Parts: sequence; C-alpha cells; structure tokens
Amino acid sequence: MSETQAQLLLDRCDELAAISSRPDVLERVHLSPEHRAANDLVAGWMREAGLKTWQDAAGNQCGRLEGREPDLPALLLGSHIDTVPDAGRYDGMLGVLLAIQVVSRIRDSGIELPFALEVVAFSDEEGTRFGTALIGSRALAGTWHDDWWNLTDKNGITLFEAFQDFGLDPARLPGAFRRPEELVGYLEAHIEQGPILDDADRRLAVVSSIAGARRFALTVTGKAGHAGGTPFDRRRDALVGASELVVAIERISKERDVIGTVGRLQAFPGGVNVIPGLVELSLDLRAEFDEDRDESIRLITEAAHEICERRGLAFHSTEIYRADAVRCDLGLQEAITAGIRASGDQHPLSIWSRAGHDGMAVVAVTPVAMLFLRCKGGISHHPDEAVKKADVAAALTAYEAAVRELVNRG
Amino acid sequence: MSETQAQLLLDRCDELAAISSRPDVLERVHLSPEHRAANDLVAGWMREAGLKTWQDAAGNQCGRLEGREPDLPALLLGSHIDTVPDAGRYDGMLGVLLAIQVVSRIRDSGIELPFALEVVAFSDEEGTRFGTALIGSRALAGTWHDDWWNLTDKNGITLFEAFQDFGLDPARLPGAFRRPEELVGYLEAHIEQGPILDDADRRLAVVSSIAGARRFALTVTGKAGHAGGTPFDRRRDALVGASELVVAIERISKERDVIGTVGRLQAFPGGVNVIPGLVELSLDLRAEFDEDRDESIRLITEAAHEICERRGLAFHSTEIYRADAVRCDLGLQEAITAGIRASGDQHPLSIWSRAGHDGMAVVAVTPVAMLFLRCKGGISHHPDEAVKKADVAAALTAYEAAVRELVNRG
Repeated sequence: MSETQAQLLLDRCDELAAISSRPDVLERVHLSPEHRAANDLVAGWMREAGLKTWQDAAGNQCGRLEGREPDLPALLLGSHIDTVPDAGRYDGMLGVLLAIQVVSRIRDSGIELPFALEVVAFSDEEGTRFGTALIGSRALAGTWHDDWWNLTDKNGITLFEAFQDFGLDPARLPGAFRRPEELVGYLEAHIEQGPILDDADRRLAVVSSIAGARRFALTVTGKAGHAGGTPFDRRRDALVGASELVVAIERISKERDVIGTVGRLQAFPGGVNVIPGLVELSLDLRAEFDEDRDESIRLITEAAHEICERRGLAFHSTEIYRADAVRCDLGLQEAITAGIRASGDQHPLSIWSRAGHDGMAVVAVTPVAMLFLRCKGGISHHPDEAVKKADVAAALTAYEAAVRELVNRG
Repeated sequence: MSETQAQLLLDRCDELAAISSRPDVLERVHLSPEHRAANDLVAGWMREAGLKTWQDAAGNQCGRLEGREPDLPALLLGSHIDTVPDAGRYDGMLGVLLAIQVVSRIRDSGIELPFALEVVAFSDEEGTRFGTALIGSRALAGTWHDDWWNLTDKNGITLFEAFQDFGLDPARLPGAFRRPEELVGYLEAHIEQGPILDDADRRLAVVSSIAGARRFALTVTGKAGHAGGTPFDRRRDALVGASELVVAIERISKERDVIGTVGRLQAFPGGVNVIPGLVELSLDLRAEFDEDRDESIRLITEAAHEICERRGLAFHSTEIYRADAVRCDLGLQEAITAGIRASGDQHPLSIWSRAGHDGMAVVAVTPVAMLFLRCKGGISHHPDEAVKKADVAAALTAYEAAVRELVNRG
C-alpha cells in the first residue's frame, strides 16, 4: 500500500512542479500567482484527506483534523511549498504531501486522537522573493518583524504591497500567530539535501539539530571607469576585489570547517568595456556550532577589509538573516526514531541538518523534530533533485508510526 | 569667441545628457526612443550650422555642407551619440558637437572648399545594447555582418526587430554603406578617456594609433546545489572558479602590460542559499600591439582551463568582437598636429588610444585620424567625466585649423 501511495505523492510533486513562473524551470515564490495556484491545489488534497482547510493571514495553507473532541491542541505536521530559482520538486513539497498522506492514513485507521492533527504548507521558507527566509513559518510562530513590510523584491514591490496583491490584509497578520497552548509539537519530513544518507546507503534519519545560519548582503564599492583608458595603478575595480573575497570566503570556510557560500554576485554598471564600480554579493554561513560560524564571519570581514584597503575599495555588510542552531526536542526525536524502526531500519541514523528549515521558526512556539529521507547524490536546489519511490514509502511508514507513537503516549 | 562657443557646446552636452532611459543616470542605447530624440536634437543643430541633414539606413544622423561644387567627395567629421550604462556626457557626444561647430565656423568664414564637409553622429559605438560595438560605424564602412541581425538585447529583441521598431528597413541597410571614392578622410575629436594628458598638464594630443581590442563572452559552468547540504568536496561552484579567473586575468594583464577588464559578471541561478551553477562574464583585452594582446588571451585561456579542470567546471569562450590595432593616417595626423600648434601648443603630444573608436571601423573605407582632449583625472564611462571649457575652446581652434590645413592642401 505504501508503494502505491508513494507513487501518488511523486505524481503530486510533478503536478506541483508544473506550477511555475518560468517555462521549463521551476520557480515559485512567495505571494505570486503560482503560490495562489499551489495553495489551491494543496488545499484540495487536504480536503480529500478529510481535513478542514483555510489559508491563514500570512498565506500559509492549513488543514485540520479534529481529535477525539473539538478544539484540542494540535500536533502540527508540515513543510513549505515555495522554491528557490530553478528548483527541484521535492524540497519542501514532499514534506507537505507526506504530512497530508499521514493524516489521511491516521484518519482512515479510525484511531482515537488525544490531540488534533494539523498540516501546514508554509508560504515562504526559502526567502527567494524578499531575501529574508522563513517568512511564512515566522508568521505562524508569531516572531514577525514589522520592518519586513518594507522588504522589496527585484521589481521594487514591498512585502506589504505583495500581501495586498495576494488578497491578504497586513493589518490582520496577527491572526496567523499561534500560541504555545494551541500546539503539542511540530514534525517535518524533508529530503536530506546532502549526501550523508546516500553515501551510507540508508533511507531515513532522525535530525538531531538544525544548523544555525547567518546571511549577509555585501557590497564592494570602487569606481567605474573606461576599460581602455584607465591604467591598472589608477583602477579601483570592485570586481577584482570582490573576486578575491569570494576566493577568501571559500578558503576560510574550509579551514574552519564551516559552510560558506556566495550564491549571488553581480557587477555594476555591467558594461563590457567599463571597469565595475560596484559589486553586490551575498554570503550564507552555517555550522553545527554557532561559535564556529561567528568566528568565521569575523575572519571573513577581516579579509574583506584587508582586500578593500589594499585596492582602494569600500566594503559594506548588512546582516539580512540570522538563525541560531536549534536542537530538536528529545521526546519528538524518540518518536521519529521509533517510526524509522517501524519502517524496518533497526539502527536509525541521527544527523544534524546543514540546511535551514521551518522548524527553526516554529521552535519559538512549540517543540520540533524532523525526519530526513535520502535524495539522490545529495543534490538539492537543482532540477536534478530526485528521490526513490521505496524511500518515500519508507518515510510514509516511519512518519505515520512516529505520529502513532505520540498518539499512544497520549 | 572660442570660449563662448565652447560654453555653447558644454550646454549642448548637458541637453543631450538629459535624454536618458533612466532617471538621474545617463544611458542611451542603440535604436531606443532616446536614440530617436538625440538624433532629432543633433539634426536641429546640424541644420542651424547650415548642413543638409538625413538619417542614414543604419540610424546614423548625418549632415552635409557642399564644397565649391556639388557632389564632391567629403571629409567626414564625427563621433557617436550612444552611451555605456551610467555614462558620462562627453564620451562621443562632444566629438559630434565639435564637428558641427567646426563646420559652422568654416561655413561662416566663406572659404572655398575643395571637398564637401560631412558630420556623422554614429548610432552605436559602445555596443551597450547588443554586445557588439561599432554597429553604426561599421554600417557606414560597409563592413556589416549579416549574422548581427540575430544579436539580441537583454529583453530578447533582435537587432533586426530593433531596426524595424526604430522605423528602419533592414533590407535597405546597404544604402548606408559609403564607397572610398565618396570620402577623402575621417577626423574625430574625442576625450582621451585616460589620464596621460591630465598628468602631463596638456590640453590636446594627436592620436598615433587606436589599440586593437578583442572581447569575449565567457561562461563557467558547474552544478547548482543547496548551500547547506553540499560539502566542499562535492561542490562544483562556478562562482569561486570564475572569481579565481577574474584575479588571474588581472595578474596576467599586469605581467604582460596589456589592458584586461572583466566588466560584466553575474552568477546564476542567484539564490542566496544556492551554490552557483553558472557564471557569465565578459572579457575585454587591448594592447598597443596585437601580438601582446593575443598572447595574453592564450595565457588567460590556459589559466581558465587549469582552474576549471581542478574544480570540475567547464569553461566556454565566444569571441564577440575583434578589432586589430589601427594606425592613423600620417597625412591626417600632420594636419591635426598643425591644428594643435594653431591652438598655441608648439610641441603637440602624440599618444596611442587605449580605447576603441569609430575610426577603427571607418578606416575600412577611408583614412582616419583623431584629436584627443584632456578629461579630468582620465575618468570616463562614469558620471564624473568632466572637461574644461578652455580645453574645449582649444580643441575647437585646433580642429578647425586641422580642417583648414586639409583645405589648403586641396
């Protein structure tokens, strides 16, 4: 049965992947027309599974199955349905579809529930559109920052305007906030987005902690000038300086065993025959331990200042996102470990997540834990993202068993 | 008188600079609505100076003053009126306005002309819109390549479509080609776009040659992946590879005494938390001698292959522009030298142009020479581009005297 249902979920991932703002490439961002279409599609599947559905005040798509009596606190299951540019089709989406299917199975079993079950499809985890991640899950957790309303997308549209364009009333946002007493915990299934399971030839793992990350918008400013007419000793070429910095970020990250990535970089004004006067770049830094991450940031900043001083450039750094490492709840981890055993794996792996997840936001309001499933070659944030049907079936079995474990605990 | 007229030309540069596709920043590209407006403005000034005006089949704005009898071959004076992004207001434009003013003065003097005088405001020298430079002057020179019709701008509009949108008929393009027997030579005044005159505290120089340049569109291709989930030993990060290449290009250029510039660079897909899978960058290389330039390209390509092999990346290079060094005509150089003497400088400087100019195209159909005037700090392709009124006045005197010298030679 799990194999048939796994195929259904893979087919639904394909159906969701067809909802994209770009032809032949998957990109679906926060509060876009594609977000609307994806919410509607997911809501339909939620209702098929017997959930009562609503879209919350932050654009998250929600569904609820009542427990043995109405208005009990809920065990929240979910993930996100937004994507990075040129994305794969499993990151986030598969976790939402697994959650819906788990609720459908629990409901079909007729088991008496000591809590309600809710599924949430978060509106924004990746931060693709507005540069700040976890906007959907931070709304649910009530850790919203009002200065986010002024964040702009690449077309200059503010988050405030995007809410209105989507049909949401920014003034009603607090309606999305959840209180701790309404929830008993949060479970999320997600592809690993790394190669550890694949290298170990294992299907599933329980997550011990979610690494902290800090993100920065960096600028290197020099002076534009004519490529032919400006000798090297007069140049203040922002791009050569920024390039040295990119190489230094890789070197420092490797030396300190942290993960440092420059994902965005563009030179301005961008004429073929114009020395770049400005470079905008991003920096994403994460590590198992926050102290290592923060020490690396200090070293990178030091390197940036050295490079820029030597080249007559100016360096500026703005922190755009910060999440400290989150430990998953031990009780919920045990339930997931029991679930993985129920799937046939007697010695469940435990790994820490190098990637950020909605749980980092949700932990502000309720304990969190995660189930990882193998993805091919560890590839993610890329169209080649792939999962095996048998692994999805195992995840479904383990996820359901984990929820049943919590049901049994009462 | 020259000072008053110099002020008029500076005012006209301001007036042209107001015609821009971007607020507060000067950008005026080939076949745009701003190109149309600039052509109209320049045509009005040409008519005030007594020239008969027309727009040629390539969108170049032309004007003609007949010689002592109709249909004599013409001495061509001119420069271009397109700009780089975020441009200064003198590069190109000042040369067109000086040419118009010189013709006006010659006409006012009533001197009998053994040739016609023509002024041309070239439609495209910088190549900002379609990536290929000198499209306007190569049309006039008849060295057009039909595959240019398929060049696209950043919105996917082809040059062919842009011609039609501008009201030009691509089929009639050969009407813009000039034959050698229609022309006696080409003179161009231009700001130096370099610091040699400013450093030497001199106003003007005659140009001995125009350096050759080659331009390439480069790509470095790796594999996109999740920033958190992909360990360094599995990364194929196109941006770190491209950054090493940018640093190598600077090092090789300095060692070989050539001028190498990466003006454009952008990482894709461009997510803050996605390892770049593709980087597109440009390379502009120029040198006094073509052999030095070509040897540097060989070394840079070698370095690119070494970097990419070491990092599991692919390197691809497409030449998008090539112009070999052009020697200015000795007879025309002597006329310009005589002109500079007439402006009060008894020992005219002779320098080679590090920047490319329309003369590189025009030389295919008639001999060329150039007059450089000082710009502040050598700054160009930047809003801080500046000239002194006294230098413009000296250039006007020298330019007119150079044309009179050619008139006297007959």
